[in-house]
Amino acid sequence: MNTENTQSNQTSAMKRVTILGATGSVGQNTLDLIRRNSAAYQIASLTGNQNITQLAKDAIEFKADFVATADDKRYEDLKAALAGTGIDCGAGRTAIIEAASRNADICMAAIVGVAGLEPTLKALETTPVIGLANKECLVTAGSLFMTKAREHGAHIIPVDSEHSGAFQCLLAECPNNIKAVTLTASGGPFRSHSLKELGQVTKQQALKHPNWEMGSKITIDSATLMNKGLELIEASHLFHLKAEQVNMLIHPQSVVHCLVSCKDGSTLAQLSAPDMRVPISYSLAWPERMQTPIEPIDLAKIAHLTFEPGDEVRFPCLRLAREVLESHNIAGPVLNAANEVAVEAFLNDHCTFMAIPDIIDAALDKLSGIGSNHDPQDLNAVLHLDQQARYLAFDLLKLTA
Amino acid sequence: MNTENTQSNQTSAMKRVTILGATGSVGQNTLDLIRRNSAAYQIASLTGNQNITQLAKDAIEFKADFVATADDKRYEDLKAALAGTGIDCGAGRTAIIEAASRNADICMAAIVGVAGLEPTLKALETTPVIGLANKECLVTAGSLFMTKAREHGAHIIPVDSEHSGAFQCLLAECPNNIKAVTLTASGGPFRSHSLKELGQVTKQQALKHPNWEMGSKITIDSATLMNKGLELIEASHLFHLKAEQVNMLIHPQSVVHCLVSCKDGSTLAQLSAPDMRVPISYSLAWPERMQTPIEPIDLAKIAHLTFEPGDEVRFPCLRLAREVLESHNIAGPVLNAANEVAVEAFLNDHCTFMAIPDIIDAALDKLSGIGSNHDPQDLNAVLHLDQQARYLAFDLLKLTA
Repeated sequence: MNTENTQSNQTSAMKRVTILGATGSVGQNTLDLIRRNSAAYQIASLTGNQNITQLAKDAIEFKADFVATADDKRYEDLKAALAGTGIDCGAGRTAIIEAASRNADICMAAIVGVAGLEPTLKALETTPVIGLANKECLVTAGSLFMTKAREHGAHIIPVDSEHSGAFQCLLAECPNNIKAVTLTASGGPFRSHSLKELGQVTKQQALKHPNWEMGSKITIDSATLMNKGLELIEASHLFHLKAEQVNMLIHPQSVVHCLVSCKDGSTLAQLSAPDMRVPISYSLAWPERMQTPIEPIDLAKIAHLTFEPGDEVRFPCLRLAREVLESHNIAGPVLNAANEVAVEAFLNDHCTFMAIPDIIDAALDKLSGIGSNHDPQDLNAVLHLDQQARYLAFDLLKLTA
Repeated sequence: MNTENTQSNQTSAMKRVTILGATGSVGQNTLDLIRRNSAAYQIASLTGNQNITQLAKDAIEFKADFVATADDKRYEDLKAALAGTGIDCGAGRTAIIEAASRNADICMAAIVGVAGLEPTLKALETTPVIGLANKECLVTAGSLFMTKAREHGAHIIPVDSEHSGAFQCLLAECPNNIKAVTLTASGGPFRSHSLKELGQVTKQQALKHPNWEMGSKITIDSATLMNKGLELIEASHLFHLKAEQVNMLIHPQSVVHCLVSCKDGSTLAQLSAPDMRVPISYSLAWPERMQTPIEPIDLAKIAHLTFEPGDEVRFPCLRLAREVLESHNIAGPVLNAANEVAVEAFLNDHCTFMAIPDIIDAALDKLSGIGSNHDPQDLNAVLHLDQQARYLAFDLLKLTA
């Protein structure tokens, strides 16, 4: 076999990549990889929010065709930053949708939150490969999203490290050979805390993730284990698995990301250093792989890998997500929105760490009766339910405060 | 996904399986799986050696077409045991070759030792799928064997748990994406022994393998780590890897069998309980999987996995195998034959445990100049070199004794 460090796809045509959410962590890591593989990839469109300086800098470096900021008020700033470059730009919702709709071979969907749903649904219509880093597309609108992807023949390549791992393991497997998919979780900073200790943790402690460098929302989700709960829901949609076929396991070293067990007793796993560029590179290069600067893990050096079950008593978010999963993800938008509001409140010192699951639990309770017996089938229904859950969570927060 | 325990391939035609070496451990485990999946598999031919009772019993139970014993002198016994059943039988080399040549969909090549080489090479000519449990086909005649398999379009599905794991991980991978393949070894009963302690170990201690139930030859090979050395050579042939692309790692729990690392920093692994029926079932069902009674491993229960580098000072067999590997496996037949003679001597109390690598080392040294600069290209050349190495090893043993 040839393992020379040749850049991939040098002989084939350049792939055009759009990044929705270019200034965030996934967006920046995507650009890092494209910078290292400039013979194989070029940028089509970039979108961002407030960080106009970074957005314009990247657009100029990568010679983007089109750049959009989500913030209407920053249009003039963006235009000024791109003056004389000939790069087209826009601002606001319609500009983001335009970026998502413009011609590209790969769309990296890395907008954080439910704001990523509409543009990613739009990107599906025209882009053959979606690198999916946004969780909300599947958590709040999984059936809708996957159905639309099938209709348009778009390939969804997950960018979460756990789902990327599962995708890699499942590549050669016939679906009915699969018994279960297990996602690992580091367990976050409070893995060994007692319930009592969890009642007293601070924002500063919660923001210190042991293994991964991530945004503050997802870091808190990792501390409550809601992140893993949301990922279980994502996995059920991505891989067409029943609730009982998706599991989680605490694995503090974050080396093994996913395990796929088969009906013959064999289990396939994917391992790598906790560096987002591994799954990002996979989604860019799929069905190939690209050379990256990340060394494969050295197990002789790591020496110990440990595993333990997740505890739904100390980490009720895990239980709440599983309940949503078991009821066919109908309440996915409620789970997600109530969690977003509660985490935001915690980050602003408006509630305690253990109030996060309480608020979500109450929101799920109040909103469980509404709607139909399947998850929302169009974007407006999702956004409506999302909004309802946010209002309710705000009300519940006032009661808590 | 559908995970109901339906038997695989019930709707397709029955697969006809020949087992070369039916009375050994791999042969008996193969029959166990076929017994459990009797709607999908039937036996074509069975071969054995001395254990006529078992061979005849299995032939009758599975309604074999043809049965052969390698031992010419046991023909009448076999014929008598099969009297009235209508099952055709034979004895000696030609009968084994006949069993290997008769029509079958899968041949399980499970004869132990270099005796398995000729019949397996024969099976390649007519059988589309070879489940390869015999190590010597690749260690002594890897180029010859793989070339002939390609010429006849035979698929080689490895039955060693490590190589089966690698095969599963590599299924969807493009060869030039692969950086390295790492096989794990339990480390055997003497993993933590000092060199001095290794000088004093007994046959009884060496025969106690911590994880696997196997024959005595392979159990000693696991204690010297020669087993892993031979497997590195096998892997280089099976997966067309250079010497520097095949590695080993001590993993006392024998849960992770193989790791495949890719150029993007991702590593794929295969895990299962240490039960030979997992890789055997894979070779029978490939490219599908079959339902087996083996439960996928439960990492929450296992809790700890440990890894450490292999030590070529305390386990010189590992170094000797690597030297053979690095010189393009030309001396594969010498390594294998000298090891067989030395292990046999150790089992008969004719030499010490640490004399095993000494004898192999001396044999390799003496025979390294002979022959060509590539590994033997026909069966006779392999068997000639095998014989030379055996004579030499016997001579060396006399010097040692």
